[in-house]
This record gives sequence, structure tokens and C-alpha cells, in this order.
Amino acid sequence: MANPKLFRVIDHAVTRFSLIEDGDRILVGASGGKDSTALIEYFALRMLRRSGPQFSVTAMHIASEMSSPLNDELLSRFEQWKVPLITKKVAVLGRIKAGQRMNCWWCSTQRRTEINSFAVREGYNKIALGHHLDDILETLLMNALVKGVLSTMPPSLAYEKYPVTLIRPLCLADIPMIVRHAEASGYINSTCTCAYQDNSGRKNARRKLEALTDGRYAEKRKLFDALSHVKLDYLPK
Amino acid sequence: MANPKLFRVIDHAVTRFSLIEDGDRILVGASGGKDSTALIEYFALRMLRRSGPQFSVTAMHIASEMSSPLNDELLSRFEQWKVPLITKKVAVLGRIKAGQRMNCWWCSTQRRTEINSFAVREGYNKIALGHHLDDILETLLMNALVKGVLSTMPPSLAYEKYPVTLIRPLCLADIPMIVRHAEASGYINSTCTCAYQDNSGRKNARRKLEALTDGRYAEKRKLFDALSHVKLDYLPK
Repeated sequence: MANPKLFRVIDHAVTRFSLIEDGDRILVGASGGKDSTALIEYFALRMLRRSGPQFSVTAMHIASEMSSPLNDELLSRFEQWKVPLITKKVAVLGRIKAGQRMNCWWCSTQRRTEINSFAVREGYNKIALGHHLDDILETLLMNALVKGVLSTMPPSLAYEKYPVTLIRPLCLADIPMIVRHAEASGYINSTCTCAYQDNSGRKNARRKLEALTDGRYAEKRKLFDALSHVKLDYLPK
Repeated sequence: MANPKLFRVIDHAVTRFSLIEDGDRILVGASGGKDSTALIEYFALRMLRRSGPQFSVTAMHIASEMSSPLNDELLSRFEQWKVPLITKKVAVLGRIKAGQRMNCWWCSTQRRTEINSFAVREGYNKIALGHHLDDILETLLMNALVKGVLSTMPPSLAYEKYPVTLIRPLCLADIPMIVRHAEASGYINSTCTCAYQDNSGRKNARRKLEALTDGRYAEKRKLFDALSHVKLDYLPK
């Protein structure tokens, strides 16, 4: 497990958590960053090259005042991968109420809401997001240390109110693994940055995750696996 | 919660986890160190000074080739607190099989077995141990990162095979809190050391816990509380 290949790890997650089923219509959030780009590439190559469940994939990019538009190189990759792209412009800054400060959580909630509405309206049954193992473990640490709750973003989550399931096929892939893949595929420079970033909570959690796991993939995976092996009798009631 | 008093925190744990009931016969493991000494002091003062559940407390010290005998100052404290002390000598080193190396886990298992047998034979219904919040969180991290299991030493654990329940009244107290108390009470120097210590796993976990919580009590308590608030729907299946 020293240097596992990204697609092999995504395959494992897809199987382990039954993320893709026959007939799925999947809408993928495409930020333009390395994570969602790698996810879309995986879907495209898997779709094109393998037998197995038949499903369709559409990418959706929510553009805002803060995001740079998807660059031409990325657009031509999507075309080459035969993944249709829908772009919607949302005035995230315009939605801020007086006294509210822009932050990553709020912006991502706005973008998520747009994707959810579109998926429900257009009959997509799954929304795939580019959250990876580090994101999931950082959220775990923030929820535990700030809220006192043991929870995170699960690999698969069925919405109660809508006929839509969120899936996170990168849940077993950590950042170094995705970076290696994106570098090899030549799209690492597409990663978008945002001038409004106010994300100290997550940066702090990233530092803590690094200390906890010594930055090692094997430790991250153990920690993730522990979340599937909860021994309630050996925890405080 | 900046500098909470030890006995107030133990009170809270005893109530929250219903650790002491009327008629309890409690056997306390007494290593001679600050943790179990503070626990015995708490029991003694609580027994002597308060109304509430009626219970009895006996201390038991397992002496081995590695442990220094309890010093006279500690013995006179126990006497002053009116806590009877039973000492049993066990040849921990003598029990090591060929090729086995002495380590903390094995030694503590040997000592625990002696206490368990004695408790069952003599009709104690509870065994109180001096494990504190840091011990519990370190075990949590070791179990998660090494075994991939989410579990730790719970505040209360009923043995399935014996009519005995383990309790850990220091579960909400961290090391700095116990050290401050022991210093104020004047028994910090009784802490025993062991020449055979081979405990790199726990030392590593202590370092990680420190990084995770920035050594702050509030963060440790949040992490502990998270273990009572497990949202299985928001964890990987």
C-alpha cells in the first residue's frame, strides 16, 4: 500500500460501498480542481473501457464571482472524455446577508444547493462529489473536537427528502495519491484558487490529521476503517 | 473549564456514568502512582464526608519484581484515610515465556488478572482503576490507527463471565489536573517508575493526542464526548 494507484483505489471504494449501480444517472460536481477532474476522468475511462454497470455521467460546474472559469485545456479534456458539461453562474457574493462574512463552508453550501436542485429537476439519481480521504478525516476531526460528535461525510448518503444519493468515490484516496495522478495526467495546474479563502478551521484540522497519521496513507486508512468498526460496548455510553 | 478541580470532575463522571451504587464493594487497584492514589483519596473523602450511596473501598497493590514497594508515607496516608490495603506479590518476570519480551501491556494484564481473581473470590462487585482521560484517548488513538477499530477503555464495563464491573472514575480527568491535585496534596513524588518500560506505542499515542488537542482540556473533553455521540448514518458503513 506504499504508493497505490488512484484508479485502483477508486475501484475499491466503488465496490466496497456499492456506489455505482446499473442505470445510474450521475451528476458530478466539477470545480476545475484536481479532485473532481480526476473523478470525472475515472468515470469517463471506466465508462468507456469496461463492462459492468451501465450508467451515465454529466459534469456540472457552478461558476461564481470567486472562481476562475474552467480553462480551455480542461474543457477539451472533458470533450475528449465525452463527458457533457453544464455550467451555471451563481452570485454567491450577492447572496451574502449584511454582517455575514464569506467563508468556504457557506460558499460550498450555495454551490451544493444549486447542484442538488438541478439534479432533482433533471432526474439524476446520484450526485458525485470530489471529497477525498483527507477531506473526510479532517471533517471527522473538526466534528469531534469542535462539536463533540462522531460523524463525517460518508462515502454514500441517501437524501431523505429527495430521490438522490450523494456519493464520494474518492473516499479512499488521499491528497498525495491524487496529486501524483494529476501530475502524471498533466492537469495539476488547473487547480483553482480562491481569493476569499477563510478556512482556518480546515487548515488546522489538516495539520492535526498530519500529526495524527504522520502523513502516512496506511494510518489514514486505518483511521477511516475504524469508522466502520465502531465497538459501542467499548465506548462511553 | 480552564482549571477544573479534580474531585469536581470525578463527581461528574461518577454521576454521568452511574459508577457507584448503594451497597457496592469496591476494590481499587493501587499502583502507588499519583492516579490511583488520587482515586483512593477521592473515595476516602467522599466516603467519610458525604451522604449518598453507601459503599466500601479496599485498595489492592500487586507487587512485582519491577515495582518499588509502596512507601511508608503512602501507607500512612491510606491509614489516615481509613482505606484497608491488601498487597499481593506476583512474579511477573517469572511468568514470561521463552522468547517473550517484557512490556507494559503484558505486565498490566498479569496484575489485572490477579485483581480480578481476588475480587471474584472475595465478593467485590466493582473494580476501580486509575485510568484517566488521557489514557482513554490514547487507547482510542492506538486502537484506531493500529487496529482500525473504534474502541477504548470505557468508564464502566460489566464483565460477561464474572459478577464484577470495571469502573474508571478518573475518565474525565486529564494528567495536568491530576498532577496539580497530587502536587497540592503532596504525594506527587510517590509516582513509581519501572526500569522495564517498553512503551513506545503509548508514548507515540501521547504525542499524537497532544498534537490533536493542542494539549487543551476542552478539546480532550470534546473528543471524549464525541464517543458518546456516534452518528452511524454519517460514518462509512
